Amino acid sequence: MNKNLTTIQNVSVDCVVFGYSNEKLKVLLIKRKAIQNVSTEQFALPGDLVEENESLDDAAEKILFSLTKIDGIFLKQFHTFGDPNRVSAIKDQEWLRAFRKNPEARVVTVAYFALVKSEDYQPVPSSFAGETQWTPINEVPMLAFDHNKILDSAYQALKEKLIEKQMGFELLPKKFTLTELQTLYETILNVKYDKRNFRKSHKGKPFLKELNEKVKGVAHRPANLYTYKKGNN
Amino acid sequence: MNKNLTTIQNVSVDCVVFGYSNEKLKVLLIKRKAIQNVSTEQFALPGDLVEENESLDDAAEKILFSLTKIDGIFLKQFHTFGDPNRVSAIKDQEWLRAFRKNPEARVVTVAYFALVKSEDYQPVPSSFAGETQWTPINEVPMLAFDHNKILDSAYQALKEKLIEKQMGFELLPKKFTLTELQTLYETILNVKYDKRNFRKSHKGKPFLKELNEKVKGVAHRPANLYTYKKGNN
Repeated sequence: MNKNLTTIQNVSVDCVVFGYSNEKLKVLLIKRKAIQNVSTEQFALPGDLVEENESLDDAAEKILFSLTKIDGIFLKQFHTFGDPNRVSAIKDQEWLRAFRKNPEARVVTVAYFALVKSEDYQPVPSSFAGETQWTPINEVPMLAFDHNKILDSAYQALKEKLIEKQMGFELLPKKFTLTELQTLYETILNVKYDKRNFRKSHKGKPFLKELNEKVKGVAHRPANLYTYKKGNN
Repeated sequence: MNKNLTTIQNVSVDCVVFGYSNEKLKVLLIKRKAIQNVSTEQFALPGDLVEENESLDDAAEKILFSLTKIDGIFLKQFHTFGDPNRVSAIKDQEWLRAFRKNPEARVVTVAYFALVKSEDYQPVPSSFAGETQWTPINEVPMLAFDHNKILDSAYQALKEKLIEKQMGFELLPKKFTLTELQTLYETILNVKYDKRNFRKSHKGKPFLKELNEKVKGVAHRPANLYTYKKGNN
């Protein structure tokens, strides 16, 4: 709640935390507290102004914690949003007038993203967040400011990184089947692969190591297990 | 020269324009004009504060033009730098006191980069740029603010994009030999490839189309020509 003097007026950070769990992709949202005027109650990405003496990375981590009590997530900067009108909608101005010293100031926001197992992180609302929730990616409501645009852009970045950088393996068990990998890809990329084609195209990938080990406790044709070999793309 | 009221105090853009020419990789630098105090004369990336009513992308394009008269380059945002002390060195504060209304203000800078054929762009110094030059990447002097760090980070992003996104093909002729491609890669990545290995690993790449055509005007074993197939990575 930045009614103090130590924030810089024109720069904020916003955090897009994706969570993967039970074959669903979700995003962490806060619902901002209502004040006198009910229209200030709105869903948003966790975000706030940057303080005078903190780096952007530190601000992202601290702000995520201050609103959701979630800690220890590696947040990566992915894009900065600076449309001159990104905070000028009436609904947003109402909220800013209640919470900011200088509500008319133009705010450029540096956006961060992360991908975690959502079951490992239970958010607890705090500061100006009245509620927090893991929202399925296809059920995201209208958000504050340009946060829907920021989320779309983060989702795009996530999809690219999943393929190019082999992001996401930390969401699988250390030893996994090709079916588990396929489900992860299908969930995040929102596509369906033909099972045989997926297996064919992935069996030879240098970043996948086939183990001499099969799934236990399965009677009929247990699946082979694989592990991820880092740095082999 | 932002002594007017329309800039936002905390946000600037900086442009890292890489130029490829004659098998050299260069970067576009400005030398800031001397004023009374000689220490204000310093090399820097082209950059300045963002104005109140312009988007970040528009600011990048306009500021590059205002300092170098270079126009029509596609600048891509790649990272935002926000170390709280990035403009607080004595040499930088001297310059800021001469040129900025609020020299103590913390400035977060949104950095852009581009890769062009340097021979196609002749910079002309303007505004607070006293000189402009294409500087070979291995001869870059100490720059203003954290611009060496920004340049290093842009160079890293360039190398990644060259490989992952097949950036850089627009620097080659429409029909090129594998030797020309190898030279481009070697120059930008600052590595040496074994000729046979390079040919072997690139001949089958889906983004390269072998043409039924050879280099003309060469007596002995003229090289095959290739062309780039977009969207085949």
